[in-house]
Parts: sequence; structure tokens; C-alpha cells
Amino acid sequence: MANVKCSIPKGTRDFLPLEMARRNYIFDTIRSVFRAFAFEPIETPSLENLSTLMGKYGEEGDKLLFKVLNSGDFMEGVDFHQDYHKVAPQICDRGLRYDLTVPFARFVVQHRDQLAFPFRRYQLQPVWRADRPQKGRYREFYQCDADMIGSTSLLNELELVQMIDMVFTKLGINVCVKINNRKVLAGIAEMIGAPEKIVDITVAIDKLDKIGLDGVCAELSERGLTDVQIQALGPVFALSGDTGTKLAALDGMFANVEVGKKGAAELNELFSLIAAAGISNRVELDLTLARGLNYYTGAIFEVKALDVQIGSICGGGRYDNLTGIFGMPDVSGVGISFGADRIYDVLTELDRFPADLAHSARVMFINFGPAEQAACVAIAARLRAQSIATLVYPDAAKMKKQMDYANRRAVPFVAFVGESEMRDGTVTLKDMATGSQETLTIAQLIEKLR
Amino acid sequence: MANVKCSIPKGTRDFLPLEMARRNYIFDTIRSVFRAFAFEPIETPSLENLSTLMGKYGEEGDKLLFKVLNSGDFMEGVDFHQDYHKVAPQICDRGLRYDLTVPFARFVVQHRDQLAFPFRRYQLQPVWRADRPQKGRYREFYQCDADMIGSTSLLNELELVQMIDMVFTKLGINVCVKINNRKVLAGIAEMIGAPEKIVDITVAIDKLDKIGLDGVCAELSERGLTDVQIQALGPVFALSGDTGTKLAALDGMFANVEVGKKGAAELNELFSLIAAAGISNRVELDLTLARGLNYYTGAIFEVKALDVQIGSICGGGRYDNLTGIFGMPDVSGVGISFGADRIYDVLTELDRFPADLAHSARVMFINFGPAEQAACVAIAARLRAQSIATLVYPDAAKMKKQMDYANRRAVPFVAFVGESEMRDGTVTLKDMATGSQETLTIAQLIEKLR
Repeated sequence: MANVKCSIPKGTRDFLPLEMARRNYIFDTIRSVFRAFAFEPIETPSLENLSTLMGKYGEEGDKLLFKVLNSGDFMEGVDFHQDYHKVAPQICDRGLRYDLTVPFARFVVQHRDQLAFPFRRYQLQPVWRADRPQKGRYREFYQCDADMIGSTSLLNELELVQMIDMVFTKLGINVCVKINNRKVLAGIAEMIGAPEKIVDITVAIDKLDKIGLDGVCAELSERGLTDVQIQALGPVFALSGDTGTKLAALDGMFANVEVGKKGAAELNELFSLIAAAGISNRVELDLTLARGLNYYTGAIFEVKALDVQIGSICGGGRYDNLTGIFGMPDVSGVGISFGADRIYDVLTELDRFPADLAHSARVMFINFGPAEQAACVAIAARLRAQSIATLVYPDAAKMKKQMDYANRRAVPFVAFVGESEMRDGTVTLKDMATGSQETLTIAQLIEKLR
Repeated sequence: MANVKCSIPKGTRDFLPLEMARRNYIFDTIRSVFRAFAFEPIETPSLENLSTLMGKYGEEGDKLLFKVLNSGDFMEGVDFHQDYHKVAPQICDRGLRYDLTVPFARFVVQHRDQLAFPFRRYQLQPVWRADRPQKGRYREFYQCDADMIGSTSLLNELELVQMIDMVFTKLGINVCVKINNRKVLAGIAEMIGAPEKIVDITVAIDKLDKIGLDGVCAELSERGLTDVQIQALGPVFALSGDTGTKLAALDGMFANVEVGKKGAAELNELFSLIAAAGISNRVELDLTLARGLNYYTGAIFEVKALDVQIGSICGGGRYDNLTGIFGMPDVSGVGISFGADRIYDVLTELDRFPADLAHSARVMFINFGPAEQAACVAIAARLRAQSIATLVYPDAAKMKKQMDYANRRAVPFVAFVGESEMRDGTVTLKDMATGSQETLTIAQLIEKLR
């Protein structure tokens, strides 16, 4: 068994202490905001029945599910002369969760009698996807989701925007929160009589600034819109300027398109709430935002970092029938998901992780031998009782070896307890950054390190 | 896709908010102690290569590994007319981790150049075992491990005992820490010339109090020990009384048995360190303790709750060659693992979870309509900025409905902002436990709720 090659599966990661400290800083920040807004934590199992997961993420998603082999006599009666996608479900009953949303829907339906609605839940757990690994895309990664389900009030949407604002303000990342509404997009498509062309239309609107009106019209024509339909998009192209201007124009646009009118009214109300609430980060209406069209039914959110070129670092929206797939229809909900890996990359690029995350030990006691060690152990116990992360070097090794270890652990203070300190009940403390030393009583030491 | 049956795989669990709060209380307590002792967090992937896992847990363990089906054309060239244990490794390259120890060993070898030795790591992550589910045994459960690797000093053992003491003192669980040493057991077996009978011997010693010396001797005879061997166990049976008495007797027992002498010396030194350190919980030598014989090489720990009948709630020990299986021999380490599920059961039985874990919201604002809602949103923002978990009911629903929700969420305070409060800049706060109400300024409200 000797010399097995050490490696981990493609697309997975080990996290070393400094990475862990930085990741925990992100998770703790997000969690603290979820808690301040009185969301409740839940966890669901990593393994779900494949019947729960299959068919929820499209055909591509089904392929990307990690399937877990059944135990026992799984091969009996299976015809292996078929392709993978026929055989896999016959020898695998369970799979690793692909996201937190489908398990959440299953959870709500299964435990509905034990939950207080509107139910506000947060969930920070890993998910798995058998995607081709590439830069920034992993086969195991954490999602950080918050959802409120069982209320149609737009106050929920406001609170999500406030939470986004609070998370990124705490993390020191300047962001723009982009908001759109699925009903407005549906209204536009209905208005021009091309409901199936929503994606083409939003892509085209998105290019207006770059390629101009003529360019956009040419592209729409290529994408199969008729001249009449393109003509009918006129009022949409006219929606320019800041959020206030766009909102005012939207109001008048959907004369006879009910769904569009409803969407415009929702956007108007939400932006009024946002204006009144005083959000620090930029929040704007973005009619080109079209994420998760087959899924969302109302507001859609996406958050972009302003100072780093990277994809969206948070997103979400309202859905009206998430639990319907599990037999509990007509329960509206709205939620957001923070992308911890991208947030990590943004904080790294901006060099904005707190410096003290590197310090997993606040102080290390040098070990001069059994008697001194005993004295250090007693002092260390008092520091640890005050939650001060404390090391006692485990052997009376050479000073250089002990100091090297203190440096590798990035310990900010090293403590010396020799003969005179033992006699006086003191500690000599060295500040590793400045090199300065001072002799302190134990009470002073605790005060200094706390 | 409608009406899919909602269930989760056998042996897995959903955790509802109150269970989560209680589990997090346990994890946070353990983590705070790991941090106070300057252990560093790491995480390893849920999926490991099967080559890393197979053969590390015995034949039975190999069967209990959850194996993940390969993607793509996994069936080509596989002869399915063989039994499961031949076929599985051909169609599965990866499996879910079975414990945190083998991945930790793999991690240390793989990242050895980036780690500061002695490396002190903690790891709180789920593990998976395809065991038959039963009461208290799950197929997915968390392990909470702390290990120090790269040092043979017994100060490490002392620190683990201190950590056990601190965790259970914080949790309010009275425990007994039982300690033994693998070398002493090896010494006893060597002394009587029956190294393969260690388990039989420890089982017999364990029954001494119950069935007496004659009963034990009869049982040992049944288990295949010769009369001469049983006779030679005399000095072991004579090891009775408290830890001090046993330690004193041990010292003289191993006249010519080097490994036994070494073990006795280690135990003596460790118990001296423990006596000097002032541990609150009971710590005792238990020569019948024999966990993980094929694995541990020095000290062995096991922790029993004193006031609840349940198996061990924490255990661990020293190993001298954990990383050897991955080609990095002779690195000694020592570690412990807390059993979160059993600790949960103990705290439940003792009814010792803090009452405030039930309160995921500290205050809820009643919603009287748009103008009042706006006032509440502004006050709520100030509370949330102070990390006070705050709800604003999302609709101006009937009072009864809003109060019912507050009760279901177990909110300790409900806040009313009506016309007069808006005019005066105040809040009327109702204490849900006592029913008493008072009108407060916002500053007073923050002070009260913080």
C-alpha cells in the first residue's frame, strides 16, 4: 500500500488554512446578514433520490448529475447493451445534489406542516456538477442561498436588495445591483407578437449602445424577427437613460398588455421602496437582464462588481411555482444566491481580505524545558479561556526552530517565560512585526492580546 | 412531473431550523475550542479517488464506501458477469469520503511543503457510509476532528485532554475521559506470549468487576488462552484501584518488556501533566480501553458522558505512521474526534441546550400598512446593522395572523409602530413571554434588544 499517488479528483479542491480563513470570512459575513434579517438555517442531505433531481435541470443537467452506485446486487436484470443514460438510472437510485433550490422545494413540501410561512430559510452547503472543469468552475462548490417562500409582498424583494447591499458593504466590494422583471420581458414579447423571441430581443437591447439602432435591427432580422415585429419594438429601444426615466416610460408602454403592465407596476413599487430605504450601492433597472427565464416569474436580480471584471457575483429572483413540481402548487417565493468562489476572486484581486485572517494563532510560548513549559501551560490555559488563540511550542527545541515555526504560522506575538519571569509571575512578549519586547503581568498580557 | 413523492434516501436527514441552531451550537463550541488552541481549519473534497480510499478501512469498509458512477462510456470493456465488488471499481473512479482521517493523511502528504509542522488542523465536514441505518447511525454524518502531526511531545496529548475538558465544560456535560496506551496493551500481550489475544484480554479485564476473577479466567480459557498465559496475567488483574495506584503498579510490571515499559512511562508522564494542568472533568486510566488497535500506537482516549447512558462521545489517540500509506513514513501524530450526533442526543436528554437557540428572530414589527411599513423598514435597518435579528411582517395582514406568525417563529419581542409612534419617533415593544408593553425611543429599543 506504500507510495500511493496523492491526488484528488479533477475539478475538486483542498482548502489550506489561509484559504479556509478567507472563505470562512466570506461565509460568516453572508451568514451574519442572513441572520440579521431573521432567516432560519436548514440543511438537506448531500444525497437525494435521483427521482427528486432528474428532469429538474433540463437534459443537460441530468447528464451533469453525479450518480451514486447502488450497493448489493445492482446488476441483476440490467441490460448493459444500452447507452449510459439508459443504464445509469437502473444501477443508481441516488445522486449528489446539483443545487440548493430543488432540494429546498422538496424540503418545503415534505415539511410544510412544521414550517412557519412565510418561511425564510438560508442554506450554505456544497453542490456537485459533473461539468468540464475550467478556471473558476469546479465540480464541488458552495452555494449560499436565502429564500422567502409563501409571500407575494414586494417587501421581500426590498429586503433581498438590502441584504445584498449589506453583504457587499461589509465585504468592501462596490457593486451595482441590476434588477429586471420577468413580466416586463413577457409583456414586450407579447406586445410584438413573438413570445418565443425573448432571448433574442434582450440580447439585441443589450447591444444598443455598442452597435446602434440600425445594427440591432439588422441582427434581429437575422434572428428571424419580421419587420413589423422589429418596428413594434420601437418603444422598447426608446427606453434609455437612468432608472427613473425608464420606469416612467415603461408605465405608458403596455397599453393593452396585462402582464407587462403588472411587471411595470411591480418595478415601480420596488424602486420606490428601494429609494425610501436608502441603499448604499448602486441599484438600477436593466431591461437586458434575462436570467433563468423558464424559472422566474417576477423580479430578477443580478449583482456585478464595479471594480473587477468578472461575471455576476450574486443573483436571484421571484418564482411562483417552485414547489409545484413536488405537488404543492401556487406558493410564491423569492430568493438570492451568493457566489462565494467569485466573491473570493474579487476580494483577492482587490486585496481586500482583512490582514488578521492570516493569524490562526495570536501568541506562541517558547518552550525552554519542563519547568518553564508547565508555567506556560498554566498561562496558556488562562488565555485560551478568553478565546485567545494560543500555542505552546511542544518541545524545548532550539530557539531558531521554534522561532521559524512562529514565523511560518504568522504568529504576531511570541511569549518568553524563563527563570526570572517564572519568579516574578510575568511574561516577556515580543511583537513580531516591530521586534519590540515588553514584560507584562498575566493580567496585562490578557488585556494586550484580547 | 407533478406530484413526485417527497422523500430522502434512507439513513439521511433534513435538518429543520431548531435542529440546525442546536447543531450549530455544538459545532460552534467545538470550533471555538479548536481555535483557542490555535488549530487551523482545512477542508478536503467530498469526492476522493477510490484508489485513495480503498483498502484503508478493511474489507468491510471497502463495501461501505459510496461509489460514484463514472460519466461517459464507462461500460466499454467491462465484464458485468462478475460480482459487485469486482464490477464497481471498473465503473467508478471516485467515492465519497468515509472519514476525515484518510483524506487528512492524503492532504498532509500532498501539501507537505506548504504546511508548518507540527501541523495542527481541525476539520468539520460530513462523511458517508453505506451502513445499515439504525437509531443513531446515519449514512451521512459530520465528524469534528482535530489532529496535531509532526511532534511526539506528550504536551500534545495533554492539550487534547484540555480541549475535551473545555468543550464539555462549555456544553455543560459531565464527562469522564478514559485514557490508555497501546504500548501497554502490546506489553501485556508480549508479557504472556499471546500478542494476537489483545482484544480477548481487554474484554476479560473489562468484566473483572462483574464476573470476578474465576469467571474471567474461565472465559479466557474458552477464548483459547493457555493456563500458563492466564497465570501470567496475574499482575494485570492486580491492577485495581484509582489511577494513581494503577500507574504505580504498572511501573514495576514490565521488567523485560520494552514496549510495555515505554507505554507505562508515557502514561506516567501524561498523567503528571494532567494533574499539573488542573482539568475540571474526571480523567482516569482505563486498561480495558482498546479502540482502533490496528491503528493507534500510543495514547488512546475515549470520553463517556456521566449522566446519560450512551456510547463514547469523543475519542482519539496517537498514531505513528498515518501518512506512511501515502509514502511519507515516520510522522507521528495524535488526534481526537467529537461525535456531534451523540453529543446532540446527550444535550437533548439532559435538556441542556440554551433556550435562546429557539429564537431565530429577536423582534418582529407588525405591519399596519404602507406608511407604517416604511417607518418599520427604517428602524429595522438600524437594528439589523447592530446584528439584531429583525422581521418586518411583509403584509398588512390581520393582527391575529401576524401574531400567530410571531408565535410560530418564537419571536421574544413584537414591535408596534402606529400613528402616534410615527409622530413621536418611538416604538411600542411587547414582551411575548410576560405580555408587558413599553414605549421606547429607537436608541432605547436598540439598547434593549442588543
